[in-house]
Amino acid sequence: MEKPYVIGMDMGGTNTVFGVVDARGNVISKSAIKTGSHTDVNLYIQDLYDELIKLIDSAGGDDKFKGIGVGAPNGNYYTGNIEFAPNLPWKGVIPFAKLMSDKFGIPAALTNDANAAAFGEMTYGAAHGMKNFIMITLGTGVGSGIIIDGKVLYGHDGFAGELGHVTAIRNNGRLCGCGKSGCLEAYASATGVARSAREILETSTKESLLRNTPVESITSKDVFDAAMEGDEVAKEIFNYTGKILGECLADFVAFSAPEAIVIFGGLSKAGDLIMNPIRENMEKNLLPLWRGKIKLLFSDLKEADAAVLGASALAWEL
Amino acid sequence: MEKPYVIGMDMGGTNTVFGVVDARGNVISKSAIKTGSHTDVNLYIQDLYDELIKLIDSAGGDDKFKGIGVGAPNGNYYTGNIEFAPNLPWKGVIPFAKLMSDKFGIPAALTNDANAAAFGEMTYGAAHGMKNFIMITLGTGVGSGIIIDGKVLYGHDGFAGELGHVTAIRNNGRLCGCGKSGCLEAYASATGVARSAREILETSTKESLLRNTPVESITSKDVFDAAMEGDEVAKEIFNYTGKILGECLADFVAFSAPEAIVIFGGLSKAGDLIMNPIRENMEKNLLPLWRGKIKLLFSDLKEADAAVLGASALAWEL
Repeated sequence: MEKPYVIGMDMGGTNTVFGVVDARGNVISKSAIKTGSHTDVNLYIQDLYDELIKLIDSAGGDDKFKGIGVGAPNGNYYTGNIEFAPNLPWKGVIPFAKLMSDKFGIPAALTNDANAAAFGEMTYGAAHGMKNFIMITLGTGVGSGIIIDGKVLYGHDGFAGELGHVTAIRNNGRLCGCGKSGCLEAYASATGVARSAREILETSTKESLLRNTPVESITSKDVFDAAMEGDEVAKEIFNYTGKILGECLADFVAFSAPEAIVIFGGLSKAGDLIMNPIRENMEKNLLPLWRGKIKLLFSDLKEADAAVLGASALAWEL
Repeated sequence: MEKPYVIGMDMGGTNTVFGVVDARGNVISKSAIKTGSHTDVNLYIQDLYDELIKLIDSAGGDDKFKGIGVGAPNGNYYTGNIEFAPNLPWKGVIPFAKLMSDKFGIPAALTNDANAAAFGEMTYGAAHGMKNFIMITLGTGVGSGIIIDGKVLYGHDGFAGELGHVTAIRNNGRLCGCGKSGCLEAYASATGVARSAREILETSTKESLLRNTPVESITSKDVFDAAMEGDEVAKEIFNYTGKILGECLADFVAFSAPEAIVIFGGLSKAGDLIMNPIRENMEKNLLPLWRGKIKLLFSDLKEADAAVLGASALAWEL
């Protein structure tokens, strides 16, 4: 008999969310543990086991499970390893898929979190039925999952789709967490938005609601809240962010000619405030043949679900 | 019996080169006609027919031919159309594959010239055996063919891989033939190199062999010749060109994580003069995980042969 369930697991720097998913994409049960509190990966897996085994037992035991799919930062689909992830407590190369399958006795596959989200979006979300699209995840960092002919683009080494680290600003660009300068991530991530806020506030005397918060503790959420109240400086920050992002998206279109670009993650909550400048600047920088033709969409999956579902989709292919 | 031959055809703005190719990639016979002198595509096809039928008859007649593969500017693999090619005399949408198969009674397929060259490079050239690489063609324009998992990347509409039109210079970039500003093509093409020469000569008083040529008639060939004689200004021009190209290549790596980037076309004759600054600036802009790992190669196919062979490879798939 076909095994009726898979496990989808989304590992973030802070939390790890996992769920039991059936063949129709229903999340039957769901739970979470903290990621960051475990400096030893084996202790992390033990904690995970203690929680996840409850869900597995409730669903009828491990015989009912076809596989475990994991979305993790710097996860390499080809090797099953997590490699040098700057936002995880474990350093170096972690053979995570193998550790999981050894612990659970269920086959496990792994990809990076943005690829898993793109897979989820294709299977259950805004990109349902699309064979060529790009997913951009705007969170603490900027990630991407690129779908070509219905498959995740992995490239030669498994690390394709690092679109947060194309150079958006060539001269005097901001230092990025990766060590390079001018990366898209240094502008379009939540931290990038907060940096833009500090820059604008410190180099102008414009009135702004944001001045009610100490400049070093302003977050992208503060910018969003201020923009929602009509604050001009906050809107300027979204315009600036959207301009840089839109310019980069036009280059991505020149690469893979996608049907759509799907924007996912916290910043997408800003709606038209961010989408309008993205669209305007993308269009301006597209070759004429693509103008007005590339769909720009917000993800319509709940953030956690997209990654869990995407990771679970990976498990069906095991 | 398997048909033993295909026709490969490379259509450029000036010349159209075509040849009979066997299953091992030997070009059995070859000929050419002018492209530009025909303002009516039907007259062009008639001329082509008159020449090509001789090669076909010498090889035993059209029964021996499995197909015709065509590489053409703005050629769309999905539709078989040439669409709005700025460098060809025929405007609008030309159903070229259909016109060819109707005329010759042999199935025909079409792709763009850079894709055909990439296909040729994978089948017979420097990228032999590679499944993930990017071919950059530096000629009158800058083209690209992107190979993903052993297949040409076409994208949703057939036009993927327009890497000559990513924005290399964001502010005050040069006007490109496509109507945008700052495109890679406006810097790294042969015409781009000539423009760089004029800019440097007109904005400096440095001595240079290039000053022996009227500034408006300097070509990339003149820059190459001067650099070969050790001219410092000419070398500066190659450094500048290589820097811009290398910066863009790093972004391309972040997209598709290729095993190699293959440089093809006239400018590659400049050898280390162009390759060294390309490599240096690409490496500087790569994420650490890719540094020192991406092969940078010059094509080792003769220019015309790569495209003819690449187009012929397309015909075997018919």
